[in-house]
Amino acid sequence: MTSTGPGRPRDPQVDRRIGQAALDVFGELGWAGFAMEAVARRAGVGKASLYLRWSSKEALLNDALTTGLVRISDVDTGTVHGDLIELATQMIDLYLGPASRAAMRLNLEARTIPGIAENYAAMRTAQTRAARAIVRRGIDRGELPPETSVTLLLDTLVGGAMMHALNTPAEKRTPDHARDLVDFLLHAVAVL
Amino acid sequence: MTSTGPGRPRDPQVDRRIGQAALDVFGELGWAGFAMEAVARRAGVGKASLYLRWSSKEALLNDALTTGLVRISDVDTGTVHGDLIELATQMIDLYLGPASRAAMRLNLEARTIPGIAENYAAMRTAQTRAARAIVRRGIDRGELPPETSVTLLLDTLVGGAMMHALNTPAEKRTPDHARDLVDFLLHAVAVL
Repeated sequence: MTSTGPGRPRDPQVDRRIGQAALDVFGELGWAGFAMEAVARRAGVGKASLYLRWSSKEALLNDALTTGLVRISDVDTGTVHGDLIELATQMIDLYLGPASRAAMRLNLEARTIPGIAENYAAMRTAQTRAARAIVRRGIDRGELPPETSVTLLLDTLVGGAMMHALNTPAEKRTPDHARDLVDFLLHAVAVL
Repeated sequence: MTSTGPGRPRDPQVDRRIGQAALDVFGELGWAGFAMEAVARRAGVGKASLYLRWSSKEALLNDALTTGLVRISDVDTGTVHGDLIELATQMIDLYLGPASRAAMRLNLEARTIPGIAENYAAMRTAQTRAARAIVRRGIDRGELPPETSVTLLLDTLVGGAMMHALNTPAEKRTPDHARDLVDFLLHAVAVL
């Protein structure tokens, strides 16, 4: 999706600034207000240098989303407890962090944006698969009972982490929340 | 917020159609695209008849949101199990129903819309209070242990219901899901 002309070494810091600017503009204005010019202005670079790197605004936004959103595929701490805490932490960080509005906007609009919908669907499928693999490994290792509902455990973990990040006032948030959430849910799956 | 001139009896069906049209337009286009004209066109009524009822687009959207979104304040089935199933059902119905996009849009934009932000904040406070009262009544009746984390239980219930509605493919949804979700979470709070 990106291309670099000869003799134009890319500056990773500029790339990061452009990526964050793209997420900001998309988060605030949605696809209707997403324009190369607005991203260039926000990043403090010329519009031409954006077009040197990305041929279209679809390519720019896809790149920014792929780089800026969480990636749970490489979570593997060795225990299901550790993996789920890592997953909950990533969700909380995402919805408290600089890509929060872009992530929410994406949930709302992605399906209707041509050129973004496909990439978004592929990202989601990969994430769902990775999250389910975490729980299945826990079952295989005997850490979770075989009848564990993978879907209920992940829906409540991911949804609970999102609610916490979006609704809990800053003064009531604790650094241990991801662990508390996981411990709470692992009680639910324990054989009684 | 609404007013009816003398000799102009309101037609509840027209009101409902306008309310749904307002939620549709807001859900699709957000506040940036929300205009009396667009709502009138969608509802199939004249723009003038909208202005007879609502003095501004803020008043129209506030009315549509107050009428069209869920209201958990009157949930009181007599048991915490029944109340939580009702709460989960309302969340699932909201995010599967015709106001789904408006509700998501509201989560994203409400804080930044003057004239909507206050009403939205008041609605959320009332809903949070009603949901917490459900769990507290369960503790008072001895159905839940006194050390139950009200916040964790509600975050995972509401977040889990939302994830289910937004992510589960139609062919995998079951009418019993709200009950399964509540039973799963009540295991988490049971004393082990």
